Amino acid sequence: MKEQVSAGNSAPGGGTSPAFSITAEQMAAYVNGLGQFGALEDGSIHRDVYDGAWLEARKWLQEQMEEAGLAVHTDAVGNLFGRIQGREDGTILTGSHLDTVSRGGRFDGALGILAGLAALRAIKQLDKLPRKSLEVVALCEEEGGRFYGDFLGSRAVWGRVEVQELDELRDARGITLRQAMELADGLPGEIRAAERTDIESFIELHIEQGPVLEKAKRKVGLVSDITGLCVQTVRVSGQADHAGTTPMEYRKDALVGVSEMILAARRIALDLGAPTVATVGHLTVESGAVNVVPETVSFSLDARHPDPARLDAVTARLGEAWMEIAGKYDLQLEIKTVQRTPGTQLDPDLTAVLAAAADLNGVETVNLTSGAGHDSQIMAQHVPTAMLFVPSVGGRSHSKDEFTSFEDCATGSKVLASALHALAY
Amino acid sequence: MKEQVSAGNSAPGGGTSPAFSITAEQMAAYVNGLGQFGALEDGSIHRDVYDGAWLEARKWLQEQMEEAGLAVHTDAVGNLFGRIQGREDGTILTGSHLDTVSRGGRFDGALGILAGLAALRAIKQLDKLPRKSLEVVALCEEEGGRFYGDFLGSRAVWGRVEVQELDELRDARGITLRQAMELADGLPGEIRAAERTDIESFIELHIEQGPVLEKAKRKVGLVSDITGLCVQTVRVSGQADHAGTTPMEYRKDALVGVSEMILAARRIALDLGAPTVATVGHLTVESGAVNVVPETVSFSLDARHPDPARLDAVTARLGEAWMEIAGKYDLQLEIKTVQRTPGTQLDPDLTAVLAAAADLNGVETVNLTSGAGHDSQIMAQHVPTAMLFVPSVGGRSHSKDEFTSFEDCATGSKVLASALHALAY
Repeated sequence: MKEQVSAGNSAPGGGTSPAFSITAEQMAAYVNGLGQFGALEDGSIHRDVYDGAWLEARKWLQEQMEEAGLAVHTDAVGNLFGRIQGREDGTILTGSHLDTVSRGGRFDGALGILAGLAALRAIKQLDKLPRKSLEVVALCEEEGGRFYGDFLGSRAVWGRVEVQELDELRDARGITLRQAMELADGLPGEIRAAERTDIESFIELHIEQGPVLEKAKRKVGLVSDITGLCVQTVRVSGQADHAGTTPMEYRKDALVGVSEMILAARRIALDLGAPTVATVGHLTVESGAVNVVPETVSFSLDARHPDPARLDAVTARLGEAWMEIAGKYDLQLEIKTVQRTPGTQLDPDLTAVLAAAADLNGVETVNLTSGAGHDSQIMAQHVPTAMLFVPSVGGRSHSKDEFTSFEDCATGSKVLASALHALAY
Repeated sequence: MKEQVSAGNSAPGGGTSPAFSITAEQMAAYVNGLGQFGALEDGSIHRDVYDGAWLEARKWLQEQMEEAGLAVHTDAVGNLFGRIQGREDGTILTGSHLDTVSRGGRFDGALGILAGLAALRAIKQLDKLPRKSLEVVALCEEEGGRFYGDFLGSRAVWGRVEVQELDELRDARGITLRQAMELADGLPGEIRAAERTDIESFIELHIEQGPVLEKAKRKVGLVSDITGLCVQTVRVSGQADHAGTTPMEYRKDALVGVSEMILAARRIALDLGAPTVATVGHLTVESGAVNVVPETVSFSLDARHPDPARLDAVTARLGEAWMEIAGKYDLQLEIKTVQRTPGTQLDPDLTAVLAAAADLNGVETVNLTSGAGHDSQIMAQHVPTAMLFVPSVGGRSHSKDEFTSFEDCATGSKVLASALHALAY
């Protein structure tokens, strides 16, 4: 017992924690088991919150939790919890989300639940009453694929789902969040009851969804922060002219200007260096035609940096460069910021617990920034929160090609188990 | 009488041709009269071949031709001719097309018919029998807006409409060319009868559809050639990755590569100089999403040069530059040439007749290349053909903003009248 160990205080001493046996075979059985639900013919997974596949997946997970000896309960929004009761107040929570993006993979979200389940199963087998309670959670919604739910599962844990969202949010078929929740045995009338006051810390294991671990040849990444995001829509207008009769030098070609803007975005992000990223992922030539000089082009910018001041600097520098390009080609430029989510610092002390757990398991780690959003950014607003990443083959995610070797899944789960043990015992 | 003057032989001597009185008021009445048919609420014109507006427009033109003292006839495809009979065999033809692009303007095509009508009306008033017959034609179709008819009117004059086209070409509502022609009192069963063997030369007046005359402050342009066109579809593929989790240096961003390709196309066209033009008018980010690095981007290239060898050189140089860019960003590149129409040299001797006629009317000219296709490129395959352009305000065309001052319309028509007189008398 290491009574001095608790979240937000200090790292555990090594050595006293048992080595947990979590095998690649077990992780393969877990991942493939959960991956049945929502599986499409091409190998991708489509599991929207509250749909049939989601309900079946949750039922299967409940059975696995019961098999692992955990006490199971669900809350009003449909989060599923598996619990090991401790002798003192306070709960150490781990887990991730059950929903997937449209035609996503078997690992994003799912692996965080399954690693937590494997860890708690291994801890349960110790047959020793922990000081703090331990729970693994399958959060109902994170991806925003069906409703623009925006972390519905993790917000519910902190009583942050508003009653009006239930009737305002509709899916593509017009079903409200309230209706969908009711159909999935949720209790939209009691969403406030989902609020928890006993949770003291949260640890989430997730696939990296990027190439850093693979390129660095590390099996575990410790996430220092989750990046901030600024999304803009940009509209550039010149003049439509006949592609045959208008000499090059007389044109006001919006697409030529936008091309230079896209290259400027890349150059500026490279100049500022990692973790700065800037992406133009969507572009439309309005009324585009083969033989017409483009008049109006609209595009999206997705810019990210964990430090809010530096994220502002990225968009300011881009705006200046774009203004200059618009002037050069005599184009009109209109920039609208449609989303600005500040970055999140994760808890250094809780991250140190993960680092010690990795060390205990003989696993070398690398520190990195998460370029994607996660439930942890909601959790971190309330309690000390940490994340560990496992490698994504080829950096692929949100696709059927998403893959993490089951050996790597087991390694991450063992580190998670050691950290949870250090915190709870 | 200048008996030595004939198409393809020599220029007329000046001075002996009468000055024709064609006023801005008359051209305004003509343009506004014809512009009633197919006029939409926003001021644009929509006159598809064989539709109701087209039929009404042709009926109105027939009345104007009769008022001008011309003998009127139509052919099997619906071309409308107004004729002054000469004492010898052989016909000098002028005119242009009656159809418009969707939501086009009052001048493109229409002005060439109306200028020919005004010229023949003025010549008829001389009340002197010409040596050669003179005709003005309203060609049924040039724009390809309803059927991809591809110069249906001018091809019919040379017996080049194929019977199978009548049943293969369908409009957006599924009506075949044969059905549409029949509904417009055409004779699809007799299309070969539209062939003419008496035509000796063709002169077409057209709006410039570009800014050259306006910028050069000239009222008439003499068209030395009609540009050649190469249309390509290009597909560039990289790798879809998460916009947040994939560092800039690990990306294979198809849109970044394409942006550089678009700028290369512009740079190469500028390097090669006028009349080279290269336009990317259409672009699609396939499955584009704000937070995904673009995997596949397709775009169109429209490249033009009147000299076939130099047009080949443009596309070859572009292909090389694009290959290099694709290599730099590790992208796949696929180029398909979907159209290659060689350029057309117009007849220098017939153009000299126009130059002399301009001189006679005290009008300074400029020589230029037509960047757009015209009926003249079909005619030029059979008989000596020349074109004169009048200025387009702001270079605008194919839109409600298409405009040529009625003074300029009259100036062009007078030059045309003098040239026709020189050829026919």
